[in-house]
Amino acid sequence: MLNQILQPIQPQIGRFEERFKKTLESDVKLVQAMGDRIMETRGKILRPALSLLTAQAIGECSDRAIDAAIGIEIIHTATLIHDDVVDFADKRRGTEVLNLRWGNQAAVLMGDFLLARALQVLVGLDSMEVMRAATRAVGRMIEGEIQEIQGGVEAESAIYFSMIDKKTASLMALSCEVGAILGGGTPEQVAQMSTFGKEVGIAFQITDDLLDFTGDEESLGKPVGNDVRERKLTLPLIRALGNCQNGEAERIQAKVRSGIESDEELQEVFHFVERYKGIEEAREEAKTYATSGLKNLLVLTTSDARQALELAVRHVVDRDR
Amino acid sequence: MLNQILQPIQPQIGRFEERFKKTLESDVKLVQAMGDRIMETRGKILRPALSLLTAQAIGECSDRAIDAAIGIEIIHTATLIHDDVVDFADKRRGTEVLNLRWGNQAAVLMGDFLLARALQVLVGLDSMEVMRAATRAVGRMIEGEIQEIQGGVEAESAIYFSMIDKKTASLMALSCEVGAILGGGTPEQVAQMSTFGKEVGIAFQITDDLLDFTGDEESLGKPVGNDVRERKLTLPLIRALGNCQNGEAERIQAKVRSGIESDEELQEVFHFVERYKGIEEAREEAKTYATSGLKNLLVLTTSDARQALELAVRHVVDRDR
Repeated sequence: MLNQILQPIQPQIGRFEERFKKTLESDVKLVQAMGDRIMETRGKILRPALSLLTAQAIGECSDRAIDAAIGIEIIHTATLIHDDVVDFADKRRGTEVLNLRWGNQAAVLMGDFLLARALQVLVGLDSMEVMRAATRAVGRMIEGEIQEIQGGVEAESAIYFSMIDKKTASLMALSCEVGAILGGGTPEQVAQMSTFGKEVGIAFQITDDLLDFTGDEESLGKPVGNDVRERKLTLPLIRALGNCQNGEAERIQAKVRSGIESDEELQEVFHFVERYKGIEEAREEAKTYATSGLKNLLVLTTSDARQALELAVRHVVDRDR
Repeated sequence: MLNQILQPIQPQIGRFEERFKKTLESDVKLVQAMGDRIMETRGKILRPALSLLTAQAIGECSDRAIDAAIGIEIIHTATLIHDDVVDFADKRRGTEVLNLRWGNQAAVLMGDFLLARALQVLVGLDSMEVMRAATRAVGRMIEGEIQEIQGGVEAESAIYFSMIDKKTASLMALSCEVGAILGGGTPEQVAQMSTFGKEVGIAFQITDDLLDFTGDEESLGKPVGNDVRERKLTLPLIRALGNCQNGEAERIQAKVRSGIESDEELQEVFHFVERYKGIEEAREEAKTYATSGLKNLLVLTTSDARQALELAVRHVVDRDR
């Protein structure tokens, strides 16, 4: 994450990192080995940043808020590990995924282990409100993942939005919701920050799906065109298909459905999406969600933390990885 | 389960079955299809029986106790699904496993989905005590599973017992613990029923491991010799290896470690385990744990439910599947 975004919660981020590492420790060797690898390939810690900044902006970013952020980041890590098993991925963040190194079996169990550990961390907060929100969010995330793999989905944006709301936005909503609860927010603030997280999450996922078309392999740490190769219809393609009024749309959709077989075919899909304004429109929609999300911040008084949240939202839609 | 065991909680079992089915429902088609398959191939419902009988024996087997039993049975179901992915299993309970029919990907996510749903059911009980116990048990179960696959384990009974305590006994302990909590037990009763569940769980797993040597494929619903084929050293083999004072022990252990390649080799291991009293001793140990478990029931006043728990323990060590 940009230093500027983390600046108002610098001491808390330090404690977060230290305790996150401790939480992954285990005297089971295989768990420790996989945990070490996870520590070496950390991501953007966007969810913890949103959670801690929300707590800070609302009231106080306490040790309890840090523990909640750890629980949420571990849930995120667990789902990434299972995603990589499900997607037959090779690389994430420029590094070989866990299942390639230790096998799908170990990766499945490591994901389970992390999910259990995350829930144990959250239970430690002794708050049924947090547990209710967390278990609901985890359930919705997994439903979204299953919707994604069940296939046979029409090129309909309603289905796409319902899926990313569950798959991605629910955990971002949880991050902000829990931050607001532990920061001592009113029920109204908690609800609005949950909506904020949800809208930022949708903007985040649209941007992720855009980067699969427009990104650079090196900065992404994984190949582009993954979604198309995996026959996934994401927003840029859905919009381009909707904008194309001739038979080309059907041909392209059939090609993606039956499986792209060469780089030439991939390039053809890329050009189609560009030509029929799929990139342009999806980028606009990501911005619209980001803007809508930002409005929820008006329930908070002005502060460095609130400014950092605004910056985080802009970063979510402007990033190149 | 034997009707006699379920007799004192007959109405509750009816409601349990009805609500268990409802809890698996989903408007995501793939989830519903896998859920239907799970309903067709239900197991012995030993954990719910222990949980509901404990609640009844202690005080009252209420709707809350039924919900807890549903949560626990769903946790069990989720771990079986991930186990089948991890073990490359073909059959469970005489039927094709989920991952063969829908693929490992769907099975991984279905396990995740069920775990999330189980936790949502348990959250509904609004008891931090239950949530603490449940998340701890799930964490220990998965640690046990990982210990089991990490391999390189010596033929040591201490390692075996630590592993089955986590992998199997922790969920049985949870079943009885939660039953005691929701039945209105005193802290002493809750602790003793947790110990009861743990000891019954260890007896259960030893018996399971025995059945892999002595069972009948048709009543088991899966092939015998699975553990040996998967290079797992279970108690009967560990005891036989310990009893054999000549080089044969090393030879047999090396064979199992390097992978059994024929039915003849499997038969040779079977005869070795029988000849060196592996079956006999493991059976004795299962009985010792069962007897020790039964002593914990003395904290309860005599009742039909307590008698049924005693019967359940005897069934655990005497069953043929």
